[in-house]
Amino acid sequence: MGDDGLDRYGGELTAVRVSDHDRVTDVAGVTVGQHHRIDDDATVADAEIAGSGWATGSTVICFPDGATGAVDVRGGGPGTRETDLLDPANSVLGPTAIVLTGGSAYGLAVADGVMTELERDHRGLAMDAHGHVVPIVPAAVVFDLTVGGWSSRPDADFGVKAVRAAGVEVATGSVGAGAGARAGALKGGIGTAGVTFDDGPAAGITVAALMVANPVGSVIDPGTGLPWDVADHGYHRLTTPAAAEIDAYAALQAKGTVLNTTIGVVATDATAGPGMMRRVAIAAQDGIARAIRPAHLPLDGDTVFAVATNRVPRPTYHPVPPGLDPELAVITAVSAAVASVVQRAIVGAVLAATPVAGIPTFAQTLPSARRRA
Amino acid sequence: MGDDGLDRYGGELTAVRVSDHDRVTDVAGVTVGQHHRIDDDATVADAEIAGSGWATGSTVICFPDGATGAVDVRGGGPGTRETDLLDPANSVLGPTAIVLTGGSAYGLAVADGVMTELERDHRGLAMDAHGHVVPIVPAAVVFDLTVGGWSSRPDADFGVKAVRAAGVEVATGSVGAGAGARAGALKGGIGTAGVTFDDGPAAGITVAALMVANPVGSVIDPGTGLPWDVADHGYHRLTTPAAAEIDAYAALQAKGTVLNTTIGVVATDATAGPGMMRRVAIAAQDGIARAIRPAHLPLDGDTVFAVATNRVPRPTYHPVPPGLDPELAVITAVSAAVASVVQRAIVGAVLAATPVAGIPTFAQTLPSARRRA
Repeated sequence: MGDDGLDRYGGELTAVRVSDHDRVTDVAGVTVGQHHRIDDDATVADAEIAGSGWATGSTVICFPDGATGAVDVRGGGPGTRETDLLDPANSVLGPTAIVLTGGSAYGLAVADGVMTELERDHRGLAMDAHGHVVPIVPAAVVFDLTVGGWSSRPDADFGVKAVRAAGVEVATGSVGAGAGARAGALKGGIGTAGVTFDDGPAAGITVAALMVANPVGSVIDPGTGLPWDVADHGYHRLTTPAAAEIDAYAALQAKGTVLNTTIGVVATDATAGPGMMRRVAIAAQDGIARAIRPAHLPLDGDTVFAVATNRVPRPTYHPVPPGLDPELAVITAVSAAVASVVQRAIVGAVLAATPVAGIPTFAQTLPSARRRA
Repeated sequence: MGDDGLDRYGGELTAVRVSDHDRVTDVAGVTVGQHHRIDDDATVADAEIAGSGWATGSTVICFPDGATGAVDVRGGGPGTRETDLLDPANSVLGPTAIVLTGGSAYGLAVADGVMTELERDHRGLAMDAHGHVVPIVPAAVVFDLTVGGWSSRPDADFGVKAVRAAGVEVATGSVGAGAGARAGALKGGIGTAGVTFDDGPAAGITVAALMVANPVGSVIDPGTGLPWDVADHGYHRLTTPAAAEIDAYAALQAKGTVLNTTIGVVATDATAGPGMMRRVAIAAQDGIARAIRPAHLPLDGDTVFAVATNRVPRPTYHPVPPGLDPELAVITAVSAAVASVVQRAIVGAVLAATPVAGIPTFAQTLPSARRRA
């Protein structure tokens, strides 16, 4: 390859390794807070009987000052807030925090609590000479109203509690916005994963994801009892489960609703503007395409936010030809890596899920698929 | 013109007259509710002193079942909610209600109260066999946090009260979402206007608008003391004001913030899907372009929703050539008329405004411009 020009970053994926803790908070400055309510006796609604009890929650991802971001909405039934503002043609460069939550459109109220709590902490866009701020808090929701009681759904107080709980630890499975999530016939939830580049223009840069897996589609192949992509099996330490377990899984009814949604946040410490981060969000959707079959349906609300903390300066030794975005070399590498990160986070959500409201989990249904460490 | 083909509706605007009450609720089934808090002693923030007291509010526009809609965001600093869902490529066809509110992004909380109040009334998208609904409540905000106290801003309770107040009467000026609005150097507010078609493919159809005028740009020309468009002068019964008043107006300081926004809702009783209503929203933005100079700036959040109630069937005697949307004849006429409706509503907002927080009004500043009836 030459010393400059497109051949430098149009080719293969450069080498990556799993990031330090394989989680979204491996991107320095990013924190995650979660709050949920789960009753042991919560039930799922069906055509005859309404659901009861609590089984829902919220997850907030907080960013350091100077974060830049964008969003890509590819489900046909999204529930969102403050996404217009993330259009790269618009003036605000990035979010203060992003809310992922259960509660369908009602759950958008969670962002109110996140905003007031961030304001109390003087976090947000500075608006005047008096220290006033408007926190930028985009949000997306998953439909889980039929898991637990219809009216038991996250409100502004969930947002307050999630922000107060924010830190670098990231619980996965049936927690936060994944508390009431379902993934096809199995329990869904929260998953996270990350990679760090070993070489190439993005050397040293981390890209990581936190996903809420709540699709109507399957994350586990009914024909094999394993994730769709064989490359996942080694990473997740999975092996072919017993035939009887595969049969039992294939016989499970899919959840009785057509309303779903997989949402998430991708973060990187690269330096990039909103336009390039929209490219990352677009590439990240391919992780949904690979992990979930089918996905991106008319009643899914599939939405991915992508945020850069801008903490790692652009390398000067990978110049981009004039007329192209100067971040293109780094962002091409990040975009090439991000789909598999999102995919791993989605699969990890299903593998980590614990029982809620009687929804069968992967661990219960396909116990012999887990290879011992 | 021929009996069919594009020449039927590619030409001039067909004749329209001002609708029955010249307001958005002339579209049958549309209602408007407003709630605001205005303190007599509220003050405006400047670089030295923070604002104080209450001077803000919210406006909700409610639609009958079966409404279809879209949105067009053309300001660079929008604050919005549930706009992705209105993308014509997505599955939800239209809103249950739309919130326009003060409070900047904090004001998005108003939609929470509108949702719970509509749910109580069983209004919204039916979601299950148990009668549960999710109301579809898109929202857009104006920046008025520097008028009155920063923390005195609309919350969910404003939404509840606005829905409960909904009816066909539409107060204008310094009310609802216009309570704290400014339009350049003058007080802004709420305006409404409507037209009904006398002939052509849209004969009998009404298109009307409700606008919240809060631009940094001017609605009144500093050179004449009148709206920019002379066609407005007759409609609004305006005449050239005294030269001293024009000089005094030109000397007024523009408001001390770069954060603004003109938002609104256009409604029609025509039959049209979300794609065609997006065309109407796009055409409606031209009303902002004509009424406000400058407009659509990087820190404006200029947003227009367009909603059809689908109560007037498509005329069968104006066929559209195969391969084109069958609503095209009607929607071309509606699109041709809508910009001037939006323009009149914006100008009307400024003319109707009454004093709040010491912001000068048109009536105070240019009193001789008003021709007696």
